[in-house]
Amino acid sequence: MARALSVSLGERSYRIVIGDRSAWQADPLPELVERGREGLLVTDANVARAWLPDVREALEARGLRLSVLTVPAGERSKGPDALATVYDALLAAPIRRDGWVVALGGGVVGDLAGFAAATYLRGIAWIQVPTSLLAMADSSVGGKTGIDVGGKNTVGAFHQPRLVLTDPGFLVTLPDAELSNGLAEVVKAGMIADPVLFDLVESRAAAVLGRDPAVLEELLARAVQVKIAIVEEDERESGKRQLLNLGHTFGHAIEAALDYRGIRHGEAVAIGLVAACRLSTLLGLAPSELVGRIEAVLGSCGLPIRGPGIGWEGLRPRLEQDKKAREQGWSFVLTGGVGNASVHRRVPEAAVREAAAYAEA
Amino acid sequence: MARALSVSLGERSYRIVIGDRSAWQADPLPELVERGREGLLVTDANVARAWLPDVREALEARGLRLSVLTVPAGERSKGPDALATVYDALLAAPIRRDGWVVALGGGVVGDLAGFAAATYLRGIAWIQVPTSLLAMADSSVGGKTGIDVGGKNTVGAFHQPRLVLTDPGFLVTLPDAELSNGLAEVVKAGMIADPVLFDLVESRAAAVLGRDPAVLEELLARAVQVKIAIVEEDERESGKRQLLNLGHTFGHAIEAALDYRGIRHGEAVAIGLVAACRLSTLLGLAPSELVGRIEAVLGSCGLPIRGPGIGWEGLRPRLEQDKKAREQGWSFVLTGGVGNASVHRRVPEAAVREAAAYAEA
Repeated sequence: MARALSVSLGERSYRIVIGDRSAWQADPLPELVERGREGLLVTDANVARAWLPDVREALEARGLRLSVLTVPAGERSKGPDALATVYDALLAAPIRRDGWVVALGGGVVGDLAGFAAATYLRGIAWIQVPTSLLAMADSSVGGKTGIDVGGKNTVGAFHQPRLVLTDPGFLVTLPDAELSNGLAEVVKAGMIADPVLFDLVESRAAAVLGRDPAVLEELLARAVQVKIAIVEEDERESGKRQLLNLGHTFGHAIEAALDYRGIRHGEAVAIGLVAACRLSTLLGLAPSELVGRIEAVLGSCGLPIRGPGIGWEGLRPRLEQDKKAREQGWSFVLTGGVGNASVHRRVPEAAVREAAAYAEA
Repeated sequence: MARALSVSLGERSYRIVIGDRSAWQADPLPELVERGREGLLVTDANVARAWLPDVREALEARGLRLSVLTVPAGERSKGPDALATVYDALLAAPIRRDGWVVALGGGVVGDLAGFAAATYLRGIAWIQVPTSLLAMADSSVGGKTGIDVGGKNTVGAFHQPRLVLTDPGFLVTLPDAELSNGLAEVVKAGMIADPVLFDLVESRAAAVLGRDPAVLEELLARAVQVKIAIVEEDERESGKRQLLNLGHTFGHAIEAALDYRGIRHGEAVAIGLVAACRLSTLLGLAPSELVGRIEAVLGSCGLPIRGPGIGWEGLRPRLEQDKKAREQGWSFVLTGGVGNASVHRRVPEAAVREAAAYAEA
């Protein structure tokens, strides 16, 4: 079985096909990626070893002609030097205005190759083939691309792909810790807007960690649909898209305090989700049982629910940075219970501190 | 007297104010650039010497708070190294998501600072203050930004400014050759769509070269309006915006053959306009007198109408590159007379060669 979800953004609309590679063959290619056009596939060394031959064959069977650039695996490929190698490969191919880019990999490859596509010749088409759960469930929806220049995601663009090909089968080679990393965003999506998804993770965590294909497909379809609905309302993150930051204000503060080292994004988000739920109960928005429920589901996903013990003095300036950016007092996405989230402004600092002490210390 | 023209592009709409700096004071600032927000002004060393104190004062009188980055004058500031210095300055300020960039300068500064604004934090607002005639009449309309990475304009973005402040008074310090450089695009605008503008240049070339403020303001308002009308119909250059390439297919081929050295863009466009008019008459689209008329007006603007003698063997591969990109045979913007232009496909090569031999050899 396979599914195709639509992201409706006017002339920037696209389809997300979730299924194995035979499902890709059945899906029509977007007009701009028709037979005979040239593309550059960007991937990393780990993904290339596991999946490049298969993916290349599947895409070339559709009549696409591909050059390939393999960048080193890991965060170091999310900077100006790696970007320069992508531009070099685009110019060397050469890829013209009617060509496109394929990003085969996780978040780093998607951010890097997507940003190159956003800016090469003032923007060419791109296809995203996510291989990590985080990329499948989260970053492949919404067109955020970018690199790190003197800071995290300081340079980037909103540039929607023309097509996303998501094969849960790729997850068999994903390390367990990376699978858990992606599950944090799935749990978040359920908490924001989909109780059925939340229940699915609660009841089938073992099957998910065992890479059960049917469960993964259902889980991905639901998580992606949550994000689609929000992105369709607010493509450029000026309003409703803030809801996606549930757990992320704390999470980003933790990551920034650690200089993005020694903790995965999903791990920081998991701790942030506990803090956000605790803050929601402190403010009387959600029943106190919610905290135990989020802790249980995150734990069953192999995610941390406490730590890393930075403390309020280390965390506060990172949280304040977010605050200053909005100039509207402490602002948080909070939850009234599973399937329900909203933005709250002027949250009392004492409650923020108590929630942080609960989850983070 | 001052004028304000509107560029209507939905949520990306903006105003172009043409007049001296007292006119700027009278014009309302766009919502996003309101009192108290931080901006980075990017300029080059030549412009800084002549105009930075005045412009800074005029903008700060509006309550804007400015950091300043001065890059070296000239094309060398249109590359990745200069871009890195702009990002550094944005991060150091620091400019946040609600901050903006001011580009004070000619085409290079506008392209560089505009591209930095397009990509910093996935896009922040920018104000363009053009100081060359080319930037005032042409590049300040339409949001094209970019840098040179292994080729001309290989990396860039469409990113509309929030406001353009055009003061013809800046042109008193512009070298004569640079004034002529900009006039090529003005003549082109007249040829495409505005016979009154074309007549104005024909009849008042001496006043223009003498920097007569009233004549310059009228000329700028008309040239800008031609471009606005076309950009409004086709923001991302997928259709009608091609008309703006009148004279540019030949012109770009000449520039590329010379590796963009030793010839100004407007000079290449002037020769390209002669070639395009000659090609139009060869194909029976325009009366043969048109060629003499374009030559006379370009000559009176101090622009070349022949040369630089690359020859067909050098020019052809550059023209073919354009051809291959479209895969529709030789394609040119041609004219049926002053105020009239359209795209023609499958133009016979013999006619192209004859037109090139006439104008270029």
